Amino acid sequence: MLLGGIEAGGTKFVCAVGDDSGRIINKISLPTVDPEETIKAVREFFNTYSIEALGVGSFGPIDLDVDSETYGTILNTPKTKWKHYDLLGNLKRAFQVPVYLDTDVNAAALGEYKYGVASDVKSCLYITVGTGIGAGFVQDGKTYIGKNHPEMGHIFVQQREDDTFAGSCPYHGACLEGLASGTAIEKRYGQKGVSLSDKEEVWELEAYYLAQAIVNYTMILSPEMIILGGGVMKQENLYPLIREKVLELVNGYVEIGSRSEFIVAPGLADEQGVKGALALTFGE
Amino acid sequence: MLLGGIEAGGTKFVCAVGDDSGRIINKISLPTVDPEETIKAVREFFNTYSIEALGVGSFGPIDLDVDSETYGTILNTPKTKWKHYDLLGNLKRAFQVPVYLDTDVNAAALGEYKYGVASDVKSCLYITVGTGIGAGFVQDGKTYIGKNHPEMGHIFVQQREDDTFAGSCPYHGACLEGLASGTAIEKRYGQKGVSLSDKEEVWELEAYYLAQAIVNYTMILSPEMIILGGGVMKQENLYPLIREKVLELVNGYVEIGSRSEFIVAPGLADEQGVKGALALTFGE
Ligand SMILES: Nc1ncnc2c1ncn2[C@@H]1O[C@H](COP(=O)(O)OP(=O)(O)O)[C@@H](O)[C@H]1O
Ligand SMILES: Nc1ncnc2c1ncn2[C@@H]1O[C@H](COP(=O)(O)OP(=O)(O)O)[C@@H](O)[C@H]1O
Ligand SMILES: [Zn+2]
Ligand SMILES: [Zn+2]
Repeated sequence: MLLGGIEAGGTKFVCAVGDDSGRIINKISLPTVDPEETIKAVREFFNTYSIEALGVGSFGPIDLDVDSETYGTILNTPKTKWKHYDLLGNLKRAFQVPVYLDTDVNAAALGEYKYGVASDVKSCLYITVGTGIGAGFVQDGKTYIGKNHPEMGHIFVQQREDDTFAGSCPYHGACLEGLASGTAIEKRYGQKGVSLSDKEEVWELEAYYLAQAIVNYTMILSPEMIILGGGVMKQENLYPLIREKVLELVNGYVEIGSRSEFIVAPGLADEQGVKGALALTFGE
Repeated sequence: MLLGGIEAGGTKFVCAVGDDSGRIINKISLPTVDPEETIKAVREFFNTYSIEALGVGSFGPIDLDVDSETYGTILNTPKTKWKHYDLLGNLKRAFQVPVYLDTDVNAAALGEYKYGVASDVKSCLYITVGTGIGAGFVQDGKTYIGKNHPEMGHIFVQQREDDTFAGSCPYHGACLEGLASGTAIEKRYGQKGVSLSDKEEVWELEAYYLAQAIVNYTMILSPEMIILGGGVMKQENLYPLIREKVLELVNGYVEIGSRSEFIVAPGLADEQGVKGALALTFGE
């Protein structure tokens, strides 16, 4: 049985044909242009195979409320050509197979849960720290959605006293994403994160915010493992800084187990999203 | 079929005998003293009936990790006599019926979901703002636990610039509970909340913190309804203040529906906890 998976990102669509063991048979990466053109290319890729179901982990915000009239539609995105685009409806029409839609971060969490670093635990939270900040959660093999799925990045945390940055979030200024995303780093320091590698104080501050976010997620969702991915986490020195800070902040209130097993790097390099998308087709 | 429910609080144990429609046949409130004496009184109350299962919503922190060796045990509580007390084990031995254990806040959420203000929605978050701050979550009739259930009160939020209070939380200082619980109010102003009713600025600040917490919970769990209960919420002027502030903070990032239907007061007066405890016995 062949299955399809799409990691539908704002920059590229990664499409894969695989089977129900998670094995990938063929994979392609397509640039995200306008919806019609992108979906046409997706269609051409999959049409060589007869897939029986399609799983999609999409950029967002996307309407995941099954009771909503706009279920499966891209919402308020700055990518104007995609705003209000009925992704689910168009994919269903294109392929005439069941389509399982979720967020990109939920798909990444599911990929790591099924095949990656979280394959031995019962729940994991996948946080991506990239252009924006988003998180997806899996428990007992099921991704968590709720009424809708606001992707968790826009939460409020304590701004450090000496940090006077107004924040880069167009909605909230100094929310977590506004304080700690790659975009925030670039705005705060006037240069990209990669060129700040040797500036310790940059990563101290970054760890300060990400640690608070992790504590908040942990107090609310209580995952067994936290996976930190995305471009900013290429600064590997962040892992130990964050682990230390989380321990300090939790201050014994809850048991979080071994720090280095609780907060980890992804196990699937760049394939957690598309493998998770494939795995979205299994569940039900 | 008779069922038992216990709302096991730090001050009192409310015990009820009821049926599977949620009807309460008899109810009693017992002071929380030491474990042996309390459980003895609980036993005497229920022994007049032949209950077939017992649901318990307990104060905490309590170990709810079924894989843990101390599952069902009270953890790090300041009530030293209860620390490490095996609540689940002792109740099982006392009654020889299935015992369903959850947090007090989850039981309250379930009570409102089954019989109260949330009976028409698919998910609700019950937040209690009292001596401490805690929250419980129900989706599709199931309470949410996670690896353990840290009760959500100890999250980090943005402290208001003009608020120099160090916070009352013994673990975290200025976490949400340390900034906005009844205890925090009393420490900050040197008097109890009830005697500050006419001080607008007190409730403005309170709403500022509770609104941030609600936004964080919403960004992460995305509940369909938020119920605010507990002693501090007796200040009814808080509801409109909080609703307004939440809308301002979300700033259009996600659709939260009608404010007055999204953030509401409990519907079951003081019975959500014990009715929810009864309902814990239904599920499985
Ligand atoms: N080595 C690095 N160190 C710090 N930041 C980096 C590094 N590499 C990429 N980034 C930042 O990560 C962000 C891109 O994240 P990425 O996860 O690759 O993409 P996206 O979030 O758009 O999917 C950019 O803000 C970029 O500056
Ligand atoms: N009318 C009121 N206005 C403001 N605060 C109140 C009011 N009534 C009670 N409180 C505060 O609520 C807290 C008690 O909360 P409650 O929910 O009754 O108990 P608990 O949290 O211990 O179960 C105390 O800090 C008390 O000062
Ligand atoms: Zn934001
Ligand atoms: Zn705290």
